[in-house]
Amino acid sequence: MSMDTAADFAKLQETLKACAREVDATLESVLPKPADLQARVQEAARYSTLSGGKRLRPFLVMQSAQLFGVKPEYSRRVGAAVEMLHSYSLVHDDLPCMDDDDLRRGRPTTHKAFDEATAVLAGDALLTQAFEVLADPGTHPSAEIRCRLVTHLAQSSGTFGMIGGQMIDMEAEKRTLEPDEIRLLQRLKTGALFEFCCAAGVILGEGSKTDHDNLLSYARDFGLAFQITDDLLDALGDAEKAGKAVGKDAGQGKATLIGAYGIEGARAEAERLAKHAADTLAPYGDKARALRALPFSLLDRQS
Amino acid sequence: MSMDTAADFAKLQETLKACAREVDATLESVLPKPADLQARVQEAARYSTLSGGKRLRPFLVMQSAQLFGVKPEYSRRVGAAVEMLHSYSLVHDDLPCMDDDDLRRGRPTTHKAFDEATAVLAGDALLTQAFEVLADPGTHPSAEIRCRLVTHLAQSSGTFGMIGGQMIDMEAEKRTLEPDEIRLLQRLKTGALFEFCCAAGVILGEGSKTDHDNLLSYARDFGLAFQITDDLLDALGDAEKAGKAVGKDAGQGKATLIGAYGIEGARAEAERLAKHAADTLAPYGDKARALRALPFSLLDRQS
Repeated sequence: MSMDTAADFAKLQETLKACAREVDATLESVLPKPADLQARVQEAARYSTLSGGKRLRPFLVMQSAQLFGVKPEYSRRVGAAVEMLHSYSLVHDDLPCMDDDDLRRGRPTTHKAFDEATAVLAGDALLTQAFEVLADPGTHPSAEIRCRLVTHLAQSSGTFGMIGGQMIDMEAEKRTLEPDEIRLLQRLKTGALFEFCCAAGVILGEGSKTDHDNLLSYARDFGLAFQITDDLLDALGDAEKAGKAVGKDAGQGKATLIGAYGIEGARAEAERLAKHAADTLAPYGDKARALRALPFSLLDRQS
Repeated sequence: MSMDTAADFAKLQETLKACAREVDATLESVLPKPADLQARVQEAARYSTLSGGKRLRPFLVMQSAQLFGVKPEYSRRVGAAVEMLHSYSLVHDDLPCMDDDDLRRGRPTTHKAFDEATAVLAGDALLTQAFEVLADPGTHPSAEIRCRLVTHLAQSSGTFGMIGGQMIDMEAEKRTLEPDEIRLLQRLKTGALFEFCCAAGVILGEGSKTDHDNLLSYARDFGLAFQITDDLLDALGDAEKAGKAVGKDAGQGKATLIGAYGIEGARAEAERLAKHAADTLAPYGDKARALRALPFSLLDRQS
C-alpha cells in the first residue's frame, strides 16, 4: 500500500488526538455556559457536542488549512463550527421520528438524556451557533472569507447537501435504491460536509483553483471510503466497540453499498479510494502526511 | 391616540400587502424548486413558507431599511431570510414533542401535511438557507455588512434569543412563571427576532448609534404589544379568524401576561406600548409613517 510507513500511523493517532484536544477546548469556550431559565437547552447542546468524538471533521479543516499556512487560531474555530453542525445533525437524526436511536458514542442520545423537545431545540441551537462562529471576526480578519465560509457550509449542509441526503435516507425506507442512488445519498449525507472541511482550508488559506480541485477530490474519495467502512462496521461490527446499535441498518432496510459490492468488494473499493485520495495530495509533500495517512486508518477502524 | 389619521391605516394595509407580494416573490425565487430524490424536504420547506403569511417581519426590515435609503433589492432579501427563519421556528414549534399543533394559518401544519421527519428536516433546511441568503453578495455589496447580519440573526434566534424563549416556554409547562419571567420569555421568543428586523435596517443603511437605539426601542415596544395582542386574541378570539386553535394556551397552562394584567389591563398596556413605539420614530418624519401606524393596527387585530 502507498502509505509512507507504519510510523505514519502512530504519528497520525497523535496528531488526531492533539487536534481533538484543541477543538474540544475551542468548543468548551464558544458553547454558552448553561445559565438562566433556558439553561436546559444549553446543557443539551454541550452534552451532545462535548462527548469525546474523534473530531475527524475539524481534523480535516485544520490539516487542510495548514497546507496553506493558515493560523491554527482561525482553523480551529472553523473546525469547532463544523463539529457543532455535525453534532446538530446527529441529535436530529437520532430523534424517534428519524432513525430512533437510543445510543450514540456509548451514551444515551440527547433526546433520551433530556427529552425530544429539548433535543430538537439543542440541534437548532448548534446549527445556529455554527454560523455565528463562522461570521465572527475571530475566525478570520477578512469578512469576504467569513462570508464564503458561511455560504459554503450552508450549501454543504442544506437540501443539496447533508439535509438532502438524510431526506433520501428516510425515503429509502419506502423503496430499494439503485447503487447510483445510494452513492448520491452518501455523497450528500456525509460526503458534502467532508468536502466543506477540505474546501474550508483552501478558502481560509486563499489557495488556487488547483488546490481547491485537489482537496475536493481528496474529500470525495475520503468521504466514500468513510461511508463504506462505516457500513462494513455496521454489518460486521461489535456493538460495544462501535458504541451504538449495530446490524441496525440492514434490519431497517437502510441503503448501503455492501449489498451492491459484497463485503470483500466493499473492502477493496475502500482501499482503492484511500490510495487515490493519498495520491491526489502527493504535490503537498510532507505537509500532507497526516491527510494522506488518514484514509488508510479507516480501513481497520473499529468505531 | 397619536396615530396620524385614519387614512394612515388604509395606507398601511396597502404597504403591508405590497411588501408581502415583494417578499413572496423573493421567497419563491430563492427557495429551491423541488427536484430529484430529496424533493420532499424542498416541497415541505415551500409549503410552510409560501403560505400567505402577513410577512410582518420582512415589513419591519424593509420599512426600517428605507429610513436610511437602502435599496429594496437588498432589504427584501434580508426580509426573505428572516421569514425563512420565522417559518422554520413555526414548523419546529408545531411538532408533536413541542406545542403539538395541527393547524397553522388555516392549513394543516407541516408535520401533518407531510410527516414528522420531513418537518424536522424542512425546518433545518429553512434555518440553514436563511444564513445562506444573508451571506450571498446579492444581499449587500459589503461583506462586513453581510457578516454583521449573519451574526445578529444567529444571536437573535439562538439560546439567548428565540430558541432560549421557546425553551423557557416548554419549561413553563412544569411550573408557573412570575410576570418578570414571562416578560423575559416573550422578549426572547418573539421579541428578539423583531429586534433583529429593525436592527437589520440600520445595519444595511449604516445608520448611527442613535438610529440603532431608536429602532431597537421601537422593536421592543412593538414586540411586547404584538405578544400581548396575540395573547388577547388567544384568550378571546375566534378559531376560524385566527386560523389556529384558540384558548389553547390557557388550557396548556402556557405563560401569558393576561393572567397578570387582566384583559383590560393588557389592552391598556398594548396601547401604551404602541404610543411609545410611534413616538420613538417621530424624528424620522414622513418616512416612518407606516412603522408608526403598525403597532396601532395590532390593537384591533383579529388574526
